[in-house]
Amino acid sequence: MDEKLRKLQPPYYAVIFTSQRTEGDNGYGKMAQAMEDLAAKQQGFLGMESARDGELGITVSYWETQEDIKRWKDNASHKVAQEKGKDEWYQHYTVRVCKVERDYFFEG
Amino acid sequence: MDEKLRKLQPPYYAVIFTSQRTEGDNGYGKMAQAMEDLAAKQQGFLGMESARDGELGITVSYWETQEDIKRWKDNASHKVAQEKGKDEWYQHYTVRVCKVERDYFFEG
Repeated sequence: MDEKLRKLQPPYYAVIFTSQRTEGDNGYGKMAQAMEDLAAKQQGFLGMESARDGELGITVSYWETQEDIKRWKDNASHKVAQEKGKDEWYQHYTVRVCKVERDYFFEG
Repeated sequence: MDEKLRKLQPPYYAVIFTSQRTEGDNGYGKMAQAMEDLAAKQQGFLGMESARDGELGITVSYWETQEDIKRWKDNASHKVAQEKGKDEWYQHYTVRVCKVERDYFFEG
């Protein structure tokens, strides 16, 4: 786990992105890595976690404020990726912008 | 995707559960299914989505209110599972309780 994410103090924000991919890579892997690298450089970025089980992928990114999320949504390179995502990579997806009100960590 | 989840009107609540499992099943699979079935019967339950990539698992459950989340946390059978989780199944995990303020769906 990303240690930085353990030091956050609520409230902060989470973007839950759930998606179902199309068949094949079609340049997705390279773009996904580029977008993750680019997101990490944005103002207010706190961290990102992803998992995929065949059909369903879940990516959660964490941000300081809603304005940071809006700015990332409007980032020019990210917008290009979003359009490619709609055209080629995703059958469908959902974006949920959330305010994290409480968090709890367990370490065994 | 769960069609019910597309019909929600924000605000509603999400619990983001990220976890790293221990080695082996140790009864986890059976309990995870039982807990998913039990959660689905609780007041205010709206849906659940899960993905696991080897180490990292992400499960997001959706609820009508914070009180529904509290009640599920305190459910007796769920509490037994939580203790087993700490003792046997998880190296570490994080729970985040979030208010979903906006959502957006794309269908290709």
